[in-house]
Amino acid sequence: MSKPLDDTHDQNARTWVESARRPGHDFPIQNLPFGVFRRRGRNEAPRIGIAIGDEVLDLARVVSQGLLDSLEQPIREALVANNLNPLLALGRDAGSQVRAEVFELLLEDVPAARRPADCLVPVANAELLLPVDIGDYSDFYASLHHATNVGSMFRPENPLLPNYKYVPIGYHGRASSIVVSGTPVRRPLGQTKDDQATGPVFGPSRGLDYESEIGCYLALGTSLGGQVVLADAEQYLFGVCLLNDWSARDIQRWEYQPLGPFLAKSFATTVSPWVVTFDALAPFRQPAFDRPAGDPDPLPYLANERDRRSGGIALTVEVYLESDKMRAEGIGPMRLSRGSLGSMYWTMAQLVTHHASNGCNLRPGDLIGSGTISGETKESRGCLLELTWRGSDPISLPTGELRRFLQDGDEVILTGYCERDGFARIGLGECRGSVVAA
Amino acid sequence: MSKPLDDTHDQNARTWVESARRPGHDFPIQNLPFGVFRRRGRNEAPRIGIAIGDEVLDLARVVSQGLLDSLEQPIREALVANNLNPLLALGRDAGSQVRAEVFELLLEDVPAARRPADCLVPVANAELLLPVDIGDYSDFYASLHHATNVGSMFRPENPLLPNYKYVPIGYHGRASSIVVSGTPVRRPLGQTKDDQATGPVFGPSRGLDYESEIGCYLALGTSLGGQVVLADAEQYLFGVCLLNDWSARDIQRWEYQPLGPFLAKSFATTVSPWVVTFDALAPFRQPAFDRPAGDPDPLPYLANERDRRSGGIALTVEVYLESDKMRAEGIGPMRLSRGSLGSMYWTMAQLVTHHASNGCNLRPGDLIGSGTISGETKESRGCLLELTWRGSDPISLPTGELRRFLQDGDEVILTGYCERDGFARIGLGECRGSVVAA
Repeated sequence: MSKPLDDTHDQNARTWVESARRPGHDFPIQNLPFGVFRRRGRNEAPRIGIAIGDEVLDLARVVSQGLLDSLEQPIREALVANNLNPLLALGRDAGSQVRAEVFELLLEDVPAARRPADCLVPVANAELLLPVDIGDYSDFYASLHHATNVGSMFRPENPLLPNYKYVPIGYHGRASSIVVSGTPVRRPLGQTKDDQATGPVFGPSRGLDYESEIGCYLALGTSLGGQVVLADAEQYLFGVCLLNDWSARDIQRWEYQPLGPFLAKSFATTVSPWVVTFDALAPFRQPAFDRPAGDPDPLPYLANERDRRSGGIALTVEVYLESDKMRAEGIGPMRLSRGSLGSMYWTMAQLVTHHASNGCNLRPGDLIGSGTISGETKESRGCLLELTWRGSDPISLPTGELRRFLQDGDEVILTGYCERDGFARIGLGECRGSVVAA
Repeated sequence: MSKPLDDTHDQNARTWVESARRPGHDFPIQNLPFGVFRRRGRNEAPRIGIAIGDEVLDLARVVSQGLLDSLEQPIREALVANNLNPLLALGRDAGSQVRAEVFELLLEDVPAARRPADCLVPVANAELLLPVDIGDYSDFYASLHHATNVGSMFRPENPLLPNYKYVPIGYHGRASSIVVSGTPVRRPLGQTKDDQATGPVFGPSRGLDYESEIGCYLALGTSLGGQVVLADAEQYLFGVCLLNDWSARDIQRWEYQPLGPFLAKSFATTVSPWVVTFDALAPFRQPAFDRPAGDPDPLPYLANERDRRSGGIALTVEVYLESDKMRAEGIGPMRLSRGSLGSMYWTMAQLVTHHASNGCNLRPGDLIGSGTISGETKESRGCLLELTWRGSDPISLPTGELRRFLQDGDEVILTGYCERDGFARIGLGECRGSVVAA
């Protein structure tokens, strides 16, 4: 399904950027994720960069030095834009070409004349911005375990609905409130109703939660009325990020029928700043989730042997929490869970094919969320709703504090990475957000 | 709530544009809706226009002739843009100023030197485009009658959910597939499951329907974490259009739980090309829908005496259908229904206030749909699902054809207008779409 492995996946490749040679770094030379940044303290337009170690490679400057002249003109033009959309519109292969060329420029043995001069900005001096102007954001619900857990809380008699194993369930999300890692998230106000109460009240949510997800930015686009056959779907997948689909459970519970979650989700969605390409993820592809015996086969439009064999990604996502008190006491964040994108019932390719199956046009820069990544074990549950079983089994923090749902001052940190013997570790960076009072 | 009536609402105002003097025209001088057009056969950038009679007034050209120099520079700049977004971003009052100035230029007794020269394009020579780059599209469900009817079909034991009279129910829609009137709509493919079948099949929808709605474009914007108090909400309402929220009922029925409609809606949404301002609608404001005795009061954030007194709009929406056979036989379209925006349970201001109540940021150019406009009577039901009661009571067309749901070749035409003694009729134009085969 994905492209064959090449030199850019060689774990022995070494770069002249020293900070990227530290073992276990998220951004070794084998990764080279795309982002958009602005130097701190400068009133400059956003610029496209590539993360390498603790630095950001300023691509506009690399282009201006003529070091990417082997790329076609439209690609070079896309690299001096203010966001990644023009590059995404050129298709996934354009990104592959840029990554391959930049890889060559950053290799230890690149001739001095080919080494970009004065193009590295320490990430500490860079303000990382939302990398893409997101047209539409759609969020899926692709973890069977998450759907089953949540369903059994809200509909104990009927936890998993009959459509789940046939339809990659999704909903339209809100694009305007997608923010980049580090943006504070204000506790939402909304209508909630206690079971015993006769009517709802309006006030701050008391059930604020995170959802640990992977987001996928689309390259290319489709025309209205078009389709994406599953065998081609990977061509539409540009790269991934971490995504926190903040959710107000008490608002959601009262509003969600019959049209689904709305204000329970639209107050904020946080994404990590770096877009890790599917090229960088190539060594970590694996078979799609193994459907339990007795589950129906996917309908033919969602079935493809290559996707079954390699549509999955062994990508680990971890969630950490740091309360105000933990911060004050210098304890540092505590890990709440560790899950894997590989445990999802549907592959990213299946999500894209399903999304376009009704003729809905996809646009370059659209963002697709995986849905909460929860596995079979308690340790792998990707939200507090599941971890605390709707508050009935609170989490103890090292400070002695208890958490059923998020409190003001809590910071939620998602991290993600791929590891496999014989290959360099590929990281996704961080997706952070702190809760501020309503 | 709305501004006081002024000269632009005088029914005796006469324009020198002859086609606009025809009684009953949608676009008299008292209307002056905004749109975006391109002259047919010219490879030119989209231009902002105002509809007057059978013509489009080319605003960029009017500006270039210095006839709008009394407007501030940012407003004049917004009028030479390629869409309405810059004008919307300046706020509702900017649109009011433009409408008032253009009104003066089009009055019969305007001095010859102030009459725009060569600025009118016959609408037959204009390609009308989507007027706004829509960031986010949210669709509501504001008709109590529609919600009750649909609910009683899908959940006979529980037609109206307990949240309905408290929460203005809405969902995020798909922005990419919003198209302008006249764009063909391809019948969507999707998963459907008959009640008797053991599993779903994938194929063309056999339950294609329209939904007759009003769309509202927002001016201004709010910051993430901000709010819109109801008393201020009308400042965010720029203007309205007709909106057909095409829906595939069989796909919707199988997919919609638990996250709401997704592919059943996202294949297309059609809007009329002209944005009729709330200023033009000022004479037709009326009290908000009179809640039935025993209904709860709105929660305080959704309650405001001015909104109760004048938050409604007496805007009639009609739906016509023309089948291929009706077209071939020259019969012309048949009216299927006539409803009123005034029958909606929630006002547009309440929808905006609710939408922003959780801190979700609104952006200029966001589109809000009212939800299907259905009244108490059968004649006022705004979709086939309700009119044919899910196909059990088909509609007879004059050709002898029957309609449960839409057939290929069917054209759906929405029209809308306001009428009141002592005032010029204000029309919304047309919102057309023909169904083409899957």
